[in-house]
Amino acid sequence: MGKKKVMLPANEVDLATVKYQYDKIEAPHLTGFSLKLFVKLVETPLIGSLIISRLKKDNKMIEMLRNTVIPEPPMFKPEFPPQESESEVIPLDENGKPEGRVELALKSLPDYDPANSFIADSSSPFRYWKIRDYAYAYRSKLTTPSIVAERFILAIDEFKTKKPPTPLLISYDPELIRKQAAASTRRFEEGCPLSILDGIFIAIKDDIDCCPYPSKGGTTFFHEVRPVEEDAPCVARLRTCGVILVGKANMHELGLGTTGNNPNHGTTRNPHDPERYTGGSSSGPAAIVASGLCSAALGTDGGGSVRIPSSLCGVVGLKSTYGRTDMKGSICDSGTVEIIGPITSTVEDAILVYAAILGSSTAERIALKPSPPCLPNLTSHDSRDVLASLRLGKYTEWFNDVFSTDISAKCEDVLNRLLEAHGCKTVEIVIPELHEMRNAHIVSIGSESASGLYPDYEDGKKVKFTLDTRTNLALFQSFSATDYVAAQSLRRRLMYYHTEIFKKVDVIVTPTTGMTAPPIPPAALSSGETDLQVSGNLMRFVVTANLLGFPAISVPVGYDKQGLPIGLQIIGRPWCEATVLRLAAAVEELCSEPKKKPSQFYDILKED
Amino acid sequence: MGKKKVMLPANEVDLATVKYQYDKIEAPHLTGFSLKLFVKLVETPLIGSLIISRLKKDNKMIEMLRNTVIPEPPMFKPEFPPQESESEVIPLDENGKPEGRVELALKSLPDYDPANSFIADSSSPFRYWKIRDYAYAYRSKLTTPSIVAERFILAIDEFKTKKPPTPLLISYDPELIRKQAAASTRRFEEGCPLSILDGIFIAIKDDIDCCPYPSKGGTTFFHEVRPVEEDAPCVARLRTCGVILVGKANMHELGLGTTGNNPNHGTTRNPHDPERYTGGSSSGPAAIVASGLCSAALGTDGGGSVRIPSSLCGVVGLKSTYGRTDMKGSICDSGTVEIIGPITSTVEDAILVYAAILGSSTAERIALKPSPPCLPNLTSHDSRDVLASLRLGKYTEWFNDVFSTDISAKCEDVLNRLLEAHGCKTVEIVIPELHEMRNAHIVSIGSESASGLYPDYEDGKKVKFTLDTRTNLALFQSFSATDYVAAQSLRRRLMYYHTEIFKKVDVIVTPTTGMTAPPIPPAALSSGETDLQVSGNLMRFVVTANLLGFPAISVPVGYDKQGLPIGLQIIGRPWCEATVLRLAAAVEELCSEPKKKPSQFYDILKED
Repeated sequence: MGKKKVMLPANEVDLATVKYQYDKIEAPHLTGFSLKLFVKLVETPLIGSLIISRLKKDNKMIEMLRNTVIPEPPMFKPEFPPQESESEVIPLDENGKPEGRVELALKSLPDYDPANSFIADSSSPFRYWKIRDYAYAYRSKLTTPSIVAERFILAIDEFKTKKPPTPLLISYDPELIRKQAAASTRRFEEGCPLSILDGIFIAIKDDIDCCPYPSKGGTTFFHEVRPVEEDAPCVARLRTCGVILVGKANMHELGLGTTGNNPNHGTTRNPHDPERYTGGSSSGPAAIVASGLCSAALGTDGGGSVRIPSSLCGVVGLKSTYGRTDMKGSICDSGTVEIIGPITSTVEDAILVYAAILGSSTAERIALKPSPPCLPNLTSHDSRDVLASLRLGKYTEWFNDVFSTDISAKCEDVLNRLLEAHGCKTVEIVIPELHEMRNAHIVSIGSESASGLYPDYEDGKKVKFTLDTRTNLALFQSFSATDYVAAQSLRRRLMYYHTEIFKKVDVIVTPTTGMTAPPIPPAALSSGETDLQVSGNLMRFVVTANLLGFPAISVPVGYDKQGLPIGLQIIGRPWCEATVLRLAAAVEELCSEPKKKPSQFYDILKED
Repeated sequence: MGKKKVMLPANEVDLATVKYQYDKIEAPHLTGFSLKLFVKLVETPLIGSLIISRLKKDNKMIEMLRNTVIPEPPMFKPEFPPQESESEVIPLDENGKPEGRVELALKSLPDYDPANSFIADSSSPFRYWKIRDYAYAYRSKLTTPSIVAERFILAIDEFKTKKPPTPLLISYDPELIRKQAAASTRRFEEGCPLSILDGIFIAIKDDIDCCPYPSKGGTTFFHEVRPVEEDAPCVARLRTCGVILVGKANMHELGLGTTGNNPNHGTTRNPHDPERYTGGSSSGPAAIVASGLCSAALGTDGGGSVRIPSSLCGVVGLKSTYGRTDMKGSICDSGTVEIIGPITSTVEDAILVYAAILGSSTAERIALKPSPPCLPNLTSHDSRDVLASLRLGKYTEWFNDVFSTDISAKCEDVLNRLLEAHGCKTVEIVIPELHEMRNAHIVSIGSESASGLYPDYEDGKKVKFTLDTRTNLALFQSFSATDYVAAQSLRRRLMYYHTEIFKKVDVIVTPTTGMTAPPIPPAALSSGETDLQVSGNLMRFVVTANLLGFPAISVPVGYDKQGLPIGLQIIGRPWCEATVLRLAAAVEELCSEPKKKPSQFYDILKED
């Protein structure tokens, strides 16, 4: 029994009465023996139900989903009102050839000046080699993909065996890397590279199909129940562009976690501090880019899984609009919140890889009526005017709700610089029902993931999941169908609020995460862990873009006092990746503080 | 624990291997004391769960939804591939004025010949007065809406007080009927009726808002928690056309049943046999039309609720494509399977009322990209050619899976006549996974209804629901979020199969129901009843159009040996109401067997 609450229709909610609610996550931090015991209990009939009920009650889930009349009809996946088209953009043909799109993307970028980059003096401040640095090096015959491949293979081996070991790739085959590199080297010798991405080293998250590797999704067994038959469309497009696909990057098991902890294959270490997490779930993709071994990686992002590790590892992570990239061939191909997105060291590389992979022919697209994909024309004369006109929405209480003020201060500083340098105005906004948004998101992603896993879970595979996953699955399976429908009604409310906000601002800016890279508790390496407080801090700002399908990017903006990277998140209107990328490029340029070389950095283009 | 099953992708299923599966519903028929006891038990923690689990297991729900890997991503509401446009149709402007659409609808009909109808000799075989008979009578000053209103009010009172009482309307106000009739009479006197629907008597199902009446949805209390603020758009459109809205028609509580049983307001009796059910849930709407008191009624159809009672009462019931009518202002406004549709005595009246009410501005439309609404041009020269070209899909084993062969024989007979008279060919088809379709439907409609009812149920209103509803809610609340998602994946499979079928045929024909009107067990009048075998028979053919959103119509085609009406169902391609209506008109014309006058028939246009 519960007292009924009635929500006002979203369009009658008075924003002046909205109060920011601080998360009060009441849940124990469990690892080692205590986690094992906990999992035993939550999986025990009755006792388990009671524990889960208590957990949901403490976090107001039951009240919100079962005892509240939500006047809005459900919105089962993001539905966007028609969008105004963006200015000074280069439209891309999503049905065209990826090489053609990459060619156009290249034209959107400022000219490349070799004098200012690859061949520059090694005493200059640290920077990552960009895709165009590799491309220049290959085309000027300063090196070849085959030479780089050997350095790559050496480095990967070293990562695997060093102490502590940091397994970046779950599956890879040096011979296959050599073969792809040799083919690419031949193309350069013959003067006919396939695209600017030819010979570029890219890793694929373990939940996206990339032949001939298994897609384990970070588990020990998932490839046995879900064999890989062909490249995912995103991966196939990269292959068409001549990319060297290095293998399958490590991840939090099945993407159901935000730290990157993985007792099955080992936990990927943060290149800035090996005693700390990379963040997740795309732990391997972010770490392999941050450590200089790959120019890019593809990750999946259903609850920040591209942006969180990008932020924690000091690289760029792009989550495109829901439906912009094809989810076919990924383990999370059925969800309503996930996309496949690139992780790169710079915004320009994100643009190049995004241009290659975008486009979706999957069924959900029928219902989405997308605006055509566009890139910001960064070379155009009027580009600065477009930048100057951007209004940045900031919900200050939310923005400042971070574990350490280093984060909010650094992000705030960027906003000030954007105003100074470009005239971008920050507009104060209020976003109601952030707590409802989090619950709607967890019910959606949880139910949609669990639905696909349930048959295996019930078929004796339960014990093969990590304890962390089992805890999550126990929670997800407790969600009722009516909870799911209620969560979708919340999704419609949140879409309404954001549609109204996006009438006043062009983007919403937040820190990407509420904390920088958390330390890895030693006991968590073998048994995993569950720490909802850490999850809460890591996920505080990311789920808007998942539940509502908006594009969002994380750009590194500096470091906290411990030298750990901080990311700024830019959330855009639906389908407006160009605006997000344009602003991200400006942010990147303004962060004049020199980049710190990660302690685990390997220069595979030039010898260190 | 359960053994995992893996479904082949729908496009790899070999139709030659598909076997028709007869329903084996194993559940007791409960009424009176046994029903009370059963509800007590299913609402008891633990025992209730065990009973519900057993019920679901016996009906293969758990195996299908929890232990099966379904390769298709979920389809949360009907998503249609683009449709070919229909020939010889009259397109309507869904954003235009309803009177204008009705005017166009009138032009689509063959000429009206008064000599052949209203004023004809009373010794001719029984027929219902059509809207155009009323219109002619009003325009020729043979009668006035006010005169008819008095007869209507008398008849309604008589229905309420006769033995057995058969409460057609839950809420109505004679004074309001008189007022509307007087206004309409004045318009005729002044020579300016608003449309062909002016002065036409129409009832509104109790779950659709019609001012100033409460929307109880057949309950005793729902109007207290959900006050009515304005007419539903469908109702407002009828009002604009000059319709006399007579009040709120009786229904199965909250639409959650197929017999029309209602212990709260009394059970509506079948006009052909007062000891039998009308079918439901739109019991009052079908009965009020079948007994001659209204030319039309609006019902809602989420699981056959318009078509089942139309079939059992010998009238016409149209379910339009999902999204074709506006669900705003109905209790089931949030679902993914419901529409509002007309019940009339003839196909031409269905066309006129449908033209008035169609059009939806609700949010779900953004995702649906509808083809424009069309009516069949029944007067056009080439109309016969279009009819001749129609291919009727028939899955014979399904078609013949009826309680009495009278039903299939009568429906079969119509198909033969269509071939003879018009050259319409019947094409044998196979539809896989009909059992999966039923489960996907019950999980969808159940969860979506329960989600809206849960807050009241938990807030002490539980005991105010009928025992039948409480049984249903106990089942619906047992569905997990993963069941719901799995059901949506089944929806995508079924959509695939039907899209393939609709490449070969233009419509699918079935009996509307697997049985004619079932008797009312006396004990069920006060306590309600649950009889899943009857439900199974009544719902056997209807859920395709709900789960997949297709248009469908039930047309009376004759009587069984007991003199009870039989309906033929025509299911069309998405958005192709015109084809369905065209064929329905032809069927109606071909059913040369004279209509039986229902034992409870009142002629309110002419005195009996």
